[in-house]
Amino acid sequence: MTSQVAGQPHPTAEPFDAVELIRIKRDGGTLSDPQVDWIIEAYTRGLIAEEQMAALSMAIFFNGLEPAELLRWTHAMIASGERLDFSSLSRPTADKHSTGGVGDKITLPLAPLVAACGVAVPQLSGRGLGHTGGTLDKLESIPGWRASLSNAEMLRQLEKVGAVICAAGSGLAPADKKLYALRDVTGTVEAIPLIASSIMSKKIAEGTGSLVLDVKVGSGAFMKTRADATELARTMVELGTGAGVTTVALITDISTPLGLTAGNALEVAESVEVLAGGGPADVVELTVALAREMLMAAGRSDLDPAEVLASGRAMDVWKAMIRAQGGDPDAALPTAKETQLITADRDGLVTGLDAMAVGVAAWRLGAGRARREDQVQAAAGVQLHAKPGDRVRAGQPLVTLHTDTPERFERGAAALQGAYTIEDDALAAAPVPVVIDRIG
Amino acid sequence: MTSQVAGQPHPTAEPFDAVELIRIKRDGGTLSDPQVDWIIEAYTRGLIAEEQMAALSMAIFFNGLEPAELLRWTHAMIASGERLDFSSLSRPTADKHSTGGVGDKITLPLAPLVAACGVAVPQLSGRGLGHTGGTLDKLESIPGWRASLSNAEMLRQLEKVGAVICAAGSGLAPADKKLYALRDVTGTVEAIPLIASSIMSKKIAEGTGSLVLDVKVGSGAFMKTRADATELARTMVELGTGAGVTTVALITDISTPLGLTAGNALEVAESVEVLAGGGPADVVELTVALAREMLMAAGRSDLDPAEVLASGRAMDVWKAMIRAQGGDPDAALPTAKETQLITADRDGLVTGLDAMAVGVAAWRLGAGRARREDQVQAAAGVQLHAKPGDRVRAGQPLVTLHTDTPERFERGAAALQGAYTIEDDALAAAPVPVVIDRIG
Repeated sequence: MTSQVAGQPHPTAEPFDAVELIRIKRDGGTLSDPQVDWIIEAYTRGLIAEEQMAALSMAIFFNGLEPAELLRWTHAMIASGERLDFSSLSRPTADKHSTGGVGDKITLPLAPLVAACGVAVPQLSGRGLGHTGGTLDKLESIPGWRASLSNAEMLRQLEKVGAVICAAGSGLAPADKKLYALRDVTGTVEAIPLIASSIMSKKIAEGTGSLVLDVKVGSGAFMKTRADATELARTMVELGTGAGVTTVALITDISTPLGLTAGNALEVAESVEVLAGGGPADVVELTVALAREMLMAAGRSDLDPAEVLASGRAMDVWKAMIRAQGGDPDAALPTAKETQLITADRDGLVTGLDAMAVGVAAWRLGAGRARREDQVQAAAGVQLHAKPGDRVRAGQPLVTLHTDTPERFERGAAALQGAYTIEDDALAAAPVPVVIDRIG
Repeated sequence: MTSQVAGQPHPTAEPFDAVELIRIKRDGGTLSDPQVDWIIEAYTRGLIAEEQMAALSMAIFFNGLEPAELLRWTHAMIASGERLDFSSLSRPTADKHSTGGVGDKITLPLAPLVAACGVAVPQLSGRGLGHTGGTLDKLESIPGWRASLSNAEMLRQLEKVGAVICAAGSGLAPADKKLYALRDVTGTVEAIPLIASSIMSKKIAEGTGSLVLDVKVGSGAFMKTRADATELARTMVELGTGAGVTTVALITDISTPLGLTAGNALEVAESVEVLAGGGPADVVELTVALAREMLMAAGRSDLDPAEVLASGRAMDVWKAMIRAQGGDPDAALPTAKETQLITADRDGLVTGLDAMAVGVAAWRLGAGRARREDQVQAAAGVQLHAKPGDRVRAGQPLVTLHTDTPERFERGAAALQGAYTIEDDALAAAPVPVVIDRIG
């Protein structure tokens, strides 16, 4: 029998032993600065094996990281790659990050709105995975638009147009890229210090002067409880502030989808409505609230973003931004080959609509991907005709499903089974405000 | 930015998703029987990746396994390989497993003693790693002796001689072999359910009719506290009993080394002394206590092992056992090229001697290995001239260090710095009994 002897440190030229450091964290200890630096650096080099980092990540899930450990961890991730520098720009910069929610297209109207108010917005975005869509996937439904820019192109566009939404280059925080892929397959995504350092290492490396975080809470969000969302927000604000980036977080509700659409082209169309002065009230409210925070964080609170939105100047920036990346902002957006209507089966008041169910439905219809290598359908998704607070009658349209591949209707519709709560003689409750709290 | 979205189940023909099962255990849930079976089977096939099993092992370190989960886990490990069957033997079988301690050579006199009392002892053993030696390493210091036997050779020797100590074939619980190697490098060795299932899966697969466990507690042992040792013992007894193997555990003290030697040939020589009717009292006491339990568990408590030991019949079985595996029991054992003496620096009463320090010293002198591929020195080790309870005078010998490579003396001696506690006018405390508790 192999004796059940704990692993012994092996002779090596390395300053630390990976097993020893895993044990420290497992047993509730604190890692020193050189130990944290070595972990990130040795993991990036492949000297700490994936299985060792997986065990360490799970130990961090249970025992957390002290504030000083987390700050060092985040800085080590930043140090693993390049840093961008926007200090040559003639205006201040502000960036936004959302932890992701169903129907969250806010980046699309927000970036041009803030740019129209005189603050540059360098928005490095990603593609979607699972039930939340990706900002790049949405913009790629615009004919001709391209996500990849060089750093020089990005700087030029920021100076000229004021806003850029593009793909994050692989040079920013490569340690995070490697660690995130590992966490995704090892059930260690949901560790608040690892989430915070993953987001903040990229945002700090990106070189923004100020940052507004939109931390979602509710069904369909990553953080299911307000306590978790608040802890994540506080942790990120501390990290940003510690790194010299003015950082503020809004805790926002996503118990029901944002706006009336989930899907790529559908969300672009809804965003354009907002820029044109219309659009759903919750999307407008959150866009303006985040714009206000970004302007304040960048020290430019002289303009009221609601007025700028109404003036049409944000729409001008949007068109310039899309054109600068090869897109035609006036071209027709793709539409789905097939649609299917879901109607209400009874009269009553809509008192609930589950965001997760809507996200999963849009994903199953083809708007999202299950694996990184999957293609998304530009026109697939879900259009909502009733939301909480609306009264409906039996037979009235609730949802239109859009897809190019009608065999997906069945699974898409199945995801929405029970998603609506419709009650007989309920009184309409006061609507939940989108912005629940502010931390910073 | 990559959205911080929890991994989604990927489409697959497999009945479960590894990430989903990791999350269940991480969040304190219980795995079903089919889920446990799939984990072990899919891990053995390589479908569950090493990093996923590492994360799951760390989650089990924190959240444990319920008794029913652990029983199923152990059975799935057994089902991953072959099972031996000793039911054709003319006498009952009993096996012993020790969780490992410094100077623990008990298997050597115990197996022939129990065989001399009419119970067959199929003792599958391992090599050492770290500060505790391996039984096979010890026996390999006997000229000619070989550790590898086929299953047929093993059965024949059990029938003819009554005792066999040999290497476990790779066919027993291969899932455990793979998992143990992973735990060793990921800081997940010290999880009681995983230790218990690792030991018991091999012992049950080995096909013994009864089993006595020697669970060590104290410095140099795997379990540092009596509470942990008791929990491990109870868990293993439940698993054995649940699998139809009569199982008993003794909790035994290893705060100080067993006997007066740590090292391969040194421990063989001490074991032969015990078989010849002499040897250190603690080694004799534990050998007889374990023999009594094994005979009782096998239903053959008519003979008193202390009397059989005195009769010389155990020595006869020892010689036959060594000869049957090619060894010469009468050949001189190898002796070290160099020795070095450590003497007492003061008069007084020895009130403590740290087992871990002695184990590390023997290891550094060449008796053990740091990596699996290392060679061990047959003659290296530590010989003790004084143990707790002995009075010593300044200049009197405390320890002799043995090695073939004298450059190791310095690090060997350094390990023993402060290992002895010598007190002025202390009263000799009552000696700690070797056997602390019995569970079964």
